[in-house]
Amino acid sequence: MEYIADAIKIAIEEFAKLPGIGRKTAQRLVFFLIKRKPEELEALAQAIRSLKDRVRYCSVCYNLTETDPCGICSHPGRDARMICVVEEPNDVVAIEKTHEFKGVYHVLGGALSPLEGIGPDDLRIKELLQRLQGNVEEVIIATNANAEGEATAVYLSKLIKPMGIRITRIAHGVPVGGDLEFTDEVTLARALTGRTEM
Amino acid sequence: MEYIADAIKIAIEEFAKLPGIGRKTAQRLVFFLIKRKPEELEALAQAIRSLKDRVRYCSVCYNLTETDPCGICSHPGRDARMICVVEEPNDVVAIEKTHEFKGVYHVLGGALSPLEGIGPDDLRIKELLQRLQGNVEEVIIATNANAEGEATAVYLSKLIKPMGIRITRIAHGVPVGGDLEFTDEVTLARALTGRTEM
Repeated sequence: MEYIADAIKIAIEEFAKLPGIGRKTAQRLVFFLIKRKPEELEALAQAIRSLKDRVRYCSVCYNLTETDPCGICSHPGRDARMICVVEEPNDVVAIEKTHEFKGVYHVLGGALSPLEGIGPDDLRIKELLQRLQGNVEEVIIATNANAEGEATAVYLSKLIKPMGIRITRIAHGVPVGGDLEFTDEVTLARALTGRTEM
Repeated sequence: MEYIADAIKIAIEEFAKLPGIGRKTAQRLVFFLIKRKPEELEALAQAIRSLKDRVRYCSVCYNLTETDPCGICSHPGRDARMICVVEEPNDVVAIEKTHEFKGVYHVLGGALSPLEGIGPDDLRIKELLQRLQGNVEEVIIATNANAEGEATAVYLSKLIKPMGIRITRIAHGVPVGGDLEFTDEVTLARALTGRTEM
């Protein structure tokens, strides 16, 4: 491969390590970057570096943050008696975008997965139970709607119910704007089971 | 957006500036990177930085290189009497991958585009004509098969033909493995016009 400069090759390899980015896309990105101004490259390189330098986990909810506790945990308008349990920090972003939830979060850092060797001790479940010693009225389980997320939800509900705290699961059903015809059977079954009064 | 750390927001914005990467993909990439080891982030940041520090244009063919002249121009096995004219450095990569071409290249740095205000003086056409003063037998025009690439090919051919140098254009036609049924009319028309003896 004498026809391609080493620095370019290395950059292509680094980009190709990112999820959903193959060698062709990586090549396109690198050749795009080469045509940019040096300060634009520097901005991207610096932004990547800052992720490790400046971002850490909130000691209360384990969301990613630059301040500890995070902006949500320290916000006076948020109701700390309602905790929404999610798998990952990007789930917090997704829920916050709805502007529907005024409680606080607890980020587990994944979901139970015996196949991948992820057990209860690998998640921040102990830390969640600790938080529940305080004044908490409801725990909303918002783990993903796949096998691992469901298993985690069931596991948590068995732990938390005996503590006398209300525990709920976000609804699963037909997506808004979705066509019944194109909804898979499992989702449709869940939509039927979870039907509500009109 | 108090729910998302500034460093993460900045990184998402920087990634979203890359071509073909929207906000959702940028977010996914950033949350992926946060979970990596610091040295992996550093490797990516450093690779991006190196693009400007180490890579420059070859003074002969204007391909991207770390040595001047580049590996192709300085290679004793390459035939300098045959020059393949391409728009961009990634076109060199594409042609080199075929292992079919043993000549050298000339990278124009784009194609003529009156709409975008790119005229002959914005491309390395002067430099190409300079090279043709030497011992050159054939110029192969391998600009893209779109309007700009075709216009550039025609423009170059008008300049070079009077110099008594053979000038050719790469063939356009049905892609290998392609179905006639799914080939667009323009390509099919070109495939017919460019038919060869069997």
